[in-house]
Amino acid sequence: MLTRAPHSATGDAALRERARRVIPGGMWGHMNAAFLPAGYPQFYNQAAGTRLTDADGRTTIDFMCAFGPMITGYGDREVEEAAAAQAADVRIANGPAPIMVDLAELMVDMLPAADWVMFSKNGTDATTACVSIARAATGRRKVLVAEGAYHGAAPWCTPWPGGVLAEDRAHLSHYAYNDVASLAAAVDAAGDDLAAIMASAFKHDSRVDQELPTREFATEARRLADRAGGALILDDVRAGFRLDLAGSWNALGVDPDLSAWSKAMGNGHAIAAVTGKDALADAASKVFVTGSFWCEPSAMAASKATLAKLRRSDAVAHMARLGVRLREGIAAQAAAAGVAVRQTGPAQMPLILFDDDPDLAKGNLFALTALQRGAFLHPWHNMFLSLAHTDEDVDAALQATDAAMQAVAASL
Amino acid sequence: MLTRAPHSATGDAALRERARRVIPGGMWGHMNAAFLPAGYPQFYNQAAGTRLTDADGRTTIDFMCAFGPMITGYGDREVEEAAAAQAADVRIANGPAPIMVDLAELMVDMLPAADWVMFSKNGTDATTACVSIARAATGRRKVLVAEGAYHGAAPWCTPWPGGVLAEDRAHLSHYAYNDVASLAAAVDAAGDDLAAIMASAFKHDSRVDQELPTREFATEARRLADRAGGALILDDVRAGFRLDLAGSWNALGVDPDLSAWSKAMGNGHAIAAVTGKDALADAASKVFVTGSFWCEPSAMAASKATLAKLRRSDAVAHMARLGVRLREGIAAQAAAAGVAVRQTGPAQMPLILFDDDPDLAKGNLFALTALQRGAFLHPWHNMFLSLAHTDEDVDAALQATDAAMQAVAASL
Repeated sequence: MLTRAPHSATGDAALRERARRVIPGGMWGHMNAAFLPAGYPQFYNQAAGTRLTDADGRTTIDFMCAFGPMITGYGDREVEEAAAAQAADVRIANGPAPIMVDLAELMVDMLPAADWVMFSKNGTDATTACVSIARAATGRRKVLVAEGAYHGAAPWCTPWPGGVLAEDRAHLSHYAYNDVASLAAAVDAAGDDLAAIMASAFKHDSRVDQELPTREFATEARRLADRAGGALILDDVRAGFRLDLAGSWNALGVDPDLSAWSKAMGNGHAIAAVTGKDALADAASKVFVTGSFWCEPSAMAASKATLAKLRRSDAVAHMARLGVRLREGIAAQAAAAGVAVRQTGPAQMPLILFDDDPDLAKGNLFALTALQRGAFLHPWHNMFLSLAHTDEDVDAALQATDAAMQAVAASL
Repeated sequence: MLTRAPHSATGDAALRERARRVIPGGMWGHMNAAFLPAGYPQFYNQAAGTRLTDADGRTTIDFMCAFGPMITGYGDREVEEAAAAQAADVRIANGPAPIMVDLAELMVDMLPAADWVMFSKNGTDATTACVSIARAATGRRKVLVAEGAYHGAAPWCTPWPGGVLAEDRAHLSHYAYNDVASLAAAVDAAGDDLAAIMASAFKHDSRVDQELPTREFATEARRLADRAGGALILDDVRAGFRLDLAGSWNALGVDPDLSAWSKAMGNGHAIAAVTGKDALADAASKVFVTGSFWCEPSAMAASKATLAKLRRSDAVAHMARLGVRLREGIAAQAAAAGVAVRQTGPAQMPLILFDDDPDLAKGNLFALTALQRGAFLHPWHNMFLSLAHTDEDVDAALQATDAAMQAVAASL
């Protein structure tokens, strides 16, 4: 207590100043508040249900869900108790706990395209392992990814050029999401060196309209991969368990050979996974991937509790219904204010962009005004609904967005 | 409860059988018990203090510390309570909690070579980020690593060839640890394309004798990096906080430009870090590295509690003293039994290898016999002492190794 800094050193501005002295740029990565309009917080003191309280004591209804991990509610007691009970037995050991098998069995049971599972910690661990497994299985090199897609932050996929070599991406080729002709051309160009076609569950690139996969695109991706003898990899890290508990392309009738998972699978506990089909199991066992904490039993217990809760809760329908309610409310507000907005992608992972907004001035004003009125939205990254969100949360958010939409209209 | 499998399905053999159906090869990575003699467990039900209880209910005194993460004791109440208290406030949010700044300040205070810190989840995240930062800072490509060194399990560094392309390692070159001439030759060969010299805290490759760095080697690595304009990267993932709380090369008078940390820094909680000097901060802020859980506040609270406890506990001296006690005891047993053993590296990270043991038959017999007598040793990977180990633990282990040494002698 005697050594505690004065209260002023724990507010958001003071924390940022302290952080600038000991962290490059004050923060790194996707949670860097420098990507958001001035006025957004960087640090958080409390997270409960759908509410975040920042280091200045402001509480908002959150629609980012920690960029995806939160799905049954911040601090969900059921998940936290399962994790704590497991950690009380084993925090870490010289190998996994039995919960690893329980969780793997649950995922194989839930996911038609999963004959097996391997666990890790980061979405990037999972996408990278998928690529390695596909290369090991085929003895080939080329991996096709959609232009602009985010598949993680390792040198082969990070969106910034800093520290990346040409060789890190020597065998990546690109196609346009939902563009069958471009995919077919990329497959042709890869020839007999095609290791994999990789696709996100839907097009959720930031700053541009989202697109759900067309049935034609998903079906052709499957057919082209089969024809060329490559693997089809689904990156379900961001969308996983929000579009479909059986895998995001299940309703399209398309089974990927390999899928990458993370984000929501443990309701905020650090866990990721690769799932795959039997034909890839031998290759998977010959790729050496590991990490000091990949067997952490408490994260697996959290994941088992999270997935079990989602499964018995009709969670996807709940998130979609509330997403539609939010979307329709904002659309009505935009129409009333005479402001042209585009709301794209699945309703449970909303993105709101404004027409004629090249510098995001409208989007930033809209989101910042909503924040000041108590709703945490993002101006250019897809957002997330959760099982914990309620009609009342959405209605309260719509009160905030109503003021925000009027602020945008007034600025025109 | 009704759905619980019968008790027989939770023993080690039954769990392995279940795992084989849902996990490629039944297990992956460094915790795969297939790397150990038959008779070692794969699954663990309990971890407390220095004791592990496997899924068959056998309790042993552990000298692997979960391959390094455990350092203040399995389930250390002080660490677990700090983590739980933080998680009760924020499990995850749209950004970090203030604990991130506290931990960064603590590390900068503890580590003379650290002007700044960035956090992640895996040791591989940290080593990979060090390479990217060095490349971004220098605009160069070549990274020198020691032959046989383990720096993680991403394609650029994983020890197995499965899924790895030539391009993943196109700009890696090799030198021999502690061999100044070979290092100088590799630096010369890299010419004006040298981005970094990377070195482990000591030579802790598996299956071969360990070597502490000579002062000449460390000093020359620093001098050669400076002369060539590259960065010196210290991989302190495995040894960090066991050799020296100020960084493993601190006593040699050599400050690295970048250091990678993980393993012991959170006593089993999933956390990793890169630390670096001010001159590298700008480059670090221009490399996009991130992960969904890299800001997880509870792991940071665990790390702060762990490091604070180590700092006030004279932990390094304690681990070294017990390591010497174990080493001397085993040396005496070997001499008495007429068995030639080599015990190498720092005493707090012991490795025991037998002369004339190309197939590890002696090492496996020794370790397995010790296990059956209650001491968990590893036949070919370095082991770990912890702050939680006691003289009584070591004495009990020496009773087990006495029987094990006699078994080896009897087998000759």
